[in-house]
This record gives sequence, structure tokens and C-alpha cells, in this order.
Amino acid sequence: MENLLVLQSGGPTAVINASLAGVIKGGFDHPEKIGKVYGSLNGIEGVENETIRELDIFKNEENLRLLKQTPASYLGSCRKKLPPLGSDDAFYDRIFEVLEKYNIGYLCCIGGNDSMDTTNKLSAYAAEKGKSIRVIGVPKTVDNDLVITDHTPGYGSAAKFVSNCMRQIALDTDVYKMQSVVVLEAMGRNAGWLTAAAALANDSELSAADIICLPERAFDADSFIKKVEEVSKTKKTIMIAVSEGIRDKDGNYIKENNSRGDKFGHAALGGAGKTVEGWIASELGFKTRSIELSTLQRCFAAGTSLCDVTEAFNAGVKGVEFAIAGHTGMMAGFKRISNNPYNMEIVPLPVCDIANFEKKIPDEMITADGFGLTDKFCEYARPLITGEPDLIYKGGSLQFAPKL
Amino acid sequence: MENLLVLQSGGPTAVINASLAGVIKGGFDHPEKIGKVYGSLNGIEGVENETIRELDIFKNEENLRLLKQTPASYLGSCRKKLPPLGSDDAFYDRIFEVLEKYNIGYLCCIGGNDSMDTTNKLSAYAAEKGKSIRVIGVPKTVDNDLVITDHTPGYGSAAKFVSNCMRQIALDTDVYKMQSVVVLEAMGRNAGWLTAAAALANDSELSAADIICLPERAFDADSFIKKVEEVSKTKKTIMIAVSEGIRDKDGNYIKENNSRGDKFGHAALGGAGKTVEGWIASELGFKTRSIELSTLQRCFAAGTSLCDVTEAFNAGVKGVEFAIAGHTGMMAGFKRISNNPYNMEIVPLPVCDIANFEKKIPDEMITADGFGLTDKFCEYARPLITGEPDLIYKGGSLQFAPKL
Repeated sequence: MENLLVLQSGGPTAVINASLAGVIKGGFDHPEKIGKVYGSLNGIEGVENETIRELDIFKNEENLRLLKQTPASYLGSCRKKLPPLGSDDAFYDRIFEVLEKYNIGYLCCIGGNDSMDTTNKLSAYAAEKGKSIRVIGVPKTVDNDLVITDHTPGYGSAAKFVSNCMRQIALDTDVYKMQSVVVLEAMGRNAGWLTAAAALANDSELSAADIICLPERAFDADSFIKKVEEVSKTKKTIMIAVSEGIRDKDGNYIKENNSRGDKFGHAALGGAGKTVEGWIASELGFKTRSIELSTLQRCFAAGTSLCDVTEAFNAGVKGVEFAIAGHTGMMAGFKRISNNPYNMEIVPLPVCDIANFEKKIPDEMITADGFGLTDKFCEYARPLITGEPDLIYKGGSLQFAPKL
Repeated sequence: MENLLVLQSGGPTAVINASLAGVIKGGFDHPEKIGKVYGSLNGIEGVENETIRELDIFKNEENLRLLKQTPASYLGSCRKKLPPLGSDDAFYDRIFEVLEKYNIGYLCCIGGNDSMDTTNKLSAYAAEKGKSIRVIGVPKTVDNDLVITDHTPGYGSAAKFVSNCMRQIALDTDVYKMQSVVVLEAMGRNAGWLTAAAALANDSELSAADIICLPERAFDADSFIKKVEEVSKTKKTIMIAVSEGIRDKDGNYIKENNSRGDKFGHAALGGAGKTVEGWIASELGFKTRSIELSTLQRCFAAGTSLCDVTEAFNAGVKGVEFAIAGHTGMMAGFKRISNNPYNMEIVPLPVCDIANFEKKIPDEMITADGFGLTDKFCEYARPLITGEPDLIYKGGSLQFAPKL
């Protein structure tokens, strides 16, 4: 009987292991097709180096449940871009030698853009060489930048963290009587989805995201300062979210743009948030603080979205089902059926149409002045952050799956 | 009938409003003694300026429950140190004029060290002038640095956030094969309690806090680098927590200490975490990242400790009861009865013994090399972070009390 191998690559998320749990469960649930369920350590490098482990500890339901709430890549990750097909046969031969040694009939690659490229290349190589292995991609990325799929597991939980941080920091900042500004910097070098999630912090009671700066719009410092000044006329606490990837009209990253800093005698000290913090403080004189969410936004498993965890898990299960059904070179993608009620379907999408493309926020989701998101964005993103999973803690510590 | 006035001051916490909810509930629960329940906006300044509001919206149970999960000071805060008694009678006269106008018989001040000083001065002034008002302090501070009381509401939730961040970041950082280091900077200028909470991240499965640097010990850069190097011999991912307040043997803050930076050509760019990040990277060559939790550690209401929320609320309720029983110039303090099972009592403690003192971590809780915490600390702190409250979300957003 053929076996299943699963690997993870790229940057971790809070729910990438929920997808791993889904793949494992999908494997165990089809004993008529799948013999053993293996995991490769550190992505494709684990195949190359033959660091492959059986995942039987997850036959225990409690362990599987813990895996679903364990952040980061449980199997370890790598950032290896596979060589172009035909350029390095030795590499591919080695990979397939190991896959055959372990009698792998089904390979699931959980990851983002590079992992879909891996899925693409391995399935193409297998087809070319007449190998029967089916290769399926299971998406993850907090950046939500994969094309064709409606969204990507990992995004909902990261978006929830960002928007709830904005809400809480807005209250924290508002306690004194003085004018004050917070600049929160979120991940997203080219696509602003995660920064955009700050817009979900707003509701009828609280304006917790007054200005949002996305990499989809050229950042003009003068308009930005003018906008901050305008908001300050009616609001004591100004909440700003900026993407790490904001650039000026010439494409220069704001964080590397010292020209304005020089003008006022302040060199840029850090990322985009730190840079605009300096500008606001020096030009408007408001008390300003910048906060970088750093890796917390992608690994904060203590505040995930139930929608996201469930979809991540289901994408894993479906990935295995697609492979069993004979699909290869496909990704378990998301197709939205309706917004209200939220209804979504997992469908096989060809990875060759996904790998190496990048989905940015469409124009209709960005307000005319470029400093906010429209209702269309909120209708799109709100369901993805909805719901709170029951989490297992012990003595106040979030519990994780036992190590292999 | 006399009325109750409550105010909040100092830096916000995730549970200071749970104490406010407790005071309000305590007021409503004693209609035989207390007429109206008022809140003063922005601490004592709200008394001075007569911005005083009735808190009747919290007769609604749902609103009261939401208040318990609303971070930051709901009534607003201030950082005013009251003038020494006898130095500014006009100020005190104005305060008592307003208190009398609103027929305040009971005043609860929720806050940290400065608020206990306020409690102390107001009760002393009242006693001196023969006024019948009873003034009670209700403690809060993430720093846990109030003396006499076993601990302080606000600490448990902040400690839980810090330790769970360490756990999650440890997994996030461990996914690649390379040696890497994370330096997490936590609040606490003089007392290291919050940084120490990183020690709670460790358990038999995971070492998520390998080195902890507290302001209670002089920071020696050479010993520190040696310690990092030592840990690197057996561990790929090194997790370090440093207090913002670490100082060298001469008492200079590490973040301002450029001498070592100059030696290696790197100026200190930010706080303590950023500074030691630079040292590790340049001297050991490890991939190093520093993360500043910033205000999130004090306002993260989405991950509070049930123990902390409950105790914060009960301290508010008890504060009112102490006032009704005739106490004044007292703080609702915590007395630990036992660790296992955890059992704690709320008792009146004289604020004159608390205000303007500072509790540091005792020697027996710090390991001999100064880079860790002993079991004694973990036994002390573990119960404080234990338990998870049921939180109310709507569409993925943590919900807060409606505005006044």
C-alpha cells in the first residue's frame, strides 16, 4: 500500500499545524488507500536528507487536538526554492529516490507561494518521468497573497490578532487627556491584506483605525501628515496602521527613506512604523508611539479565529482527498459561495496558476484617499476572523503537541 | 444617604476595569449605605474639574460583564502626584468642596503607587480636617511592585501574556535549522517581576526562556555574552527575556550604554532588547531578533488570567466593603494563605506603609548566576496566571463596555 508524506515550508503561522493535523487525519481516515503517514522535517530538505518520521503519535485524539493549537511549523520549515526543471536532475532524482524508498504515493506540501512552486515542480517532474505520485499543495500564509483562492489559511488568525491589538491599544492610548498617536506596523511587504485587517477594529462604538497605509498605494509623506493633522481636529487619540512595505512614488521603501528625516534632522531608526512615528512627532508635535507586532502576528495561537483554524484543518483533509481522487499539481483552494451567511467550498486549483503570482488588495476595497478600506473589504474579511476556538491551557500556559 | 465615588489613575492594565466593575458592584450591592455610584474622569483631575458621571449603565449585568473584559482605564487616567499635605491647602479644599457637593462618603482610588499616595494624602487630610469621608485604595499595576501585598491585580494577566508570548515565539523561531536568538523586552524599570514571568514559559516539553535578565541584578555584558554562547552549545534556538530597566554595575541603563556598542561600531538604536540584540549579533554572529511587547503586555485583555480578573474584581468589591466598615487610608491588599491549593484573602492594609515603596524580586527567587528564576518564583507566580475567562466577542472583535 502507498504511503502519505507531508511537509511544511515557508514562514510559520498560527494555524499551519491545523492544516498538518488535517492532512494527518485525512491520511488516517483512508486506511484502504494510505498505509503510513510520514512527516518530512524541514520541508523538502527532509526528503533530501531523509529525515522522515512516522506521525503515529497523532492517532491519539488529544495529541491531534493539541497540534491544531500549536503555532509555527511543527515539522520545521525551510526556505528552499527548487531548481528549475531540467537544470538539476540530480536533485530531483534524489528526491524521488527517497520518495520511492518510503513508497510515497501521496505528497502534501503545506506552505505559501514557494511551496506551491515546489508542488508545481514536483508534480511536473513526476508527470514527465511517468511517476505515479500525486502532489497536492495546502495553502498557508498570513499575507493572504495567493491568487485565485478566495483567501488563505493563516490570514484570518493573523488578521484577528492585528485588529484586536488595534482595539486594545486604542483604549490603552486614550486614557490620558493629551493628543496622542499610535502607529502599528504590520507584516506585508507587497500586499497589504494584514495591515488592512486593522479596519476590522472599527465599529459603531470605537474608531480604532483612523488611518491605514498600504503598499498598494504610493506613500506620500505630505498627504499623510496632512491626514493625521485633519484627524487630530476631531479625535484625541489617533490610531494608524502601516504596512512594513509602504513605498514612496518612486518605489523606495519608507523605512529606507531618510530624505524627509534628514530635512528635520532625524534619521530613520527602524521600520516603516518607526519612521513615520518620527515624522509625526517632529512635524506635528504629538506624543507618538510606534509598535511593531513582529512575529507575534503570525504565531499568536492564543487568539486564533475559529473560522481560520477550521478551514486550515479542512484544507488539509481535502488535500489528501484530492490526492486520493487522483489530482496532482493542485492546491486545496477556497471558493466563496456567499458572504451572508458565510459559506465557503474547498476546491482543487491548479498550482501552476498560483505559484509565483501575488494577489494585492483590489481597488474597490481601498477608499478614494488611499488611507482606509471600504465596506467591501470588511464584508470580505470579517467572516475570516470570526469565532473563537476552545483552547487547552495548563497552569495558564497554552499547551502544544508533544515533540516527535 | 452618602454616595460612592471611584477613580482610576496611573498606567492602564488589562484588568483595572475588572476592579472598577467590582467597586461599582460593591456600591450597588449596598443600597442601605450607598446612594449613588459616581465615577471621576481622569483620576483626581476629574474631581478638581468636576467631571463626574453616574455609573448607572452598569446596573445592566451585560454592561458590567463587558466592563470586566475592557482593557485600560475606562474612566480615563492621570499621572498627578498630589502636593504634600500643608503645602497647597487650596488644592485640597477644592477637592473636598467637590466631594461634599456630591455628598461623597466613600472614595475608591484604583491604581498603583501614586494612587496609593493619593489615597494616603486624601485620607490624612480628611482625618486632619475632621471630614467623615473614607478613602480606600484598590491596587493595580502590571509591575507587581507594591509592598506588603502578596501581589497586585494586573500582574497575573500581563505575566500570562509575556510567558505565552515566549512560548509561541520559541516555536516560531525554532522552525529553521540555523542557530537563532530572540530577545524579548518586557516592562519593569526597577522591579523585574514582569520579565521574570518569562520563566513560566518553561515546562518539561519546552525551554522557552533560557536566559532572563532582571533589573535586580547588575547587567554584565561579558557574562551575558558568555552565557548566550554556553546555551548555544546545546540549543539551536535561544530565548532571552530582558527587562527594559537592566543597568550595568554603575547603574547606567543598558539601553543608554553605547560604550560596548562603540567598541564594535554599533550604536545602541533603541531599548535594552535592541541593544543586546546588536551585541549578540555582532559578537556571536547568530541570527538575532528583538521584540518589544510595548503596551500590549499591559492591555492584552484577550488573554487575561481568570485568577487575575477574579481577584481584581473582588478587590474592588472588598474595597467598598472596607469603606463601609469604616476603614480609611487602607488598601484592599492580598494575603496568601497557601500555594497548593492556591488560596488568597483580601485584607485591609495601611496605604502609608505602601505608597512610595517598591517591592523587588527577593534573592531566593533568582538563580545563583542571576540569569534565571528559581522554583520558588514559579510556585509564587504560576497560580496568578492560571485560568481563562469566557470572553465575549462579536464578529471576531473583543467587545468592550459601552461609553458613558
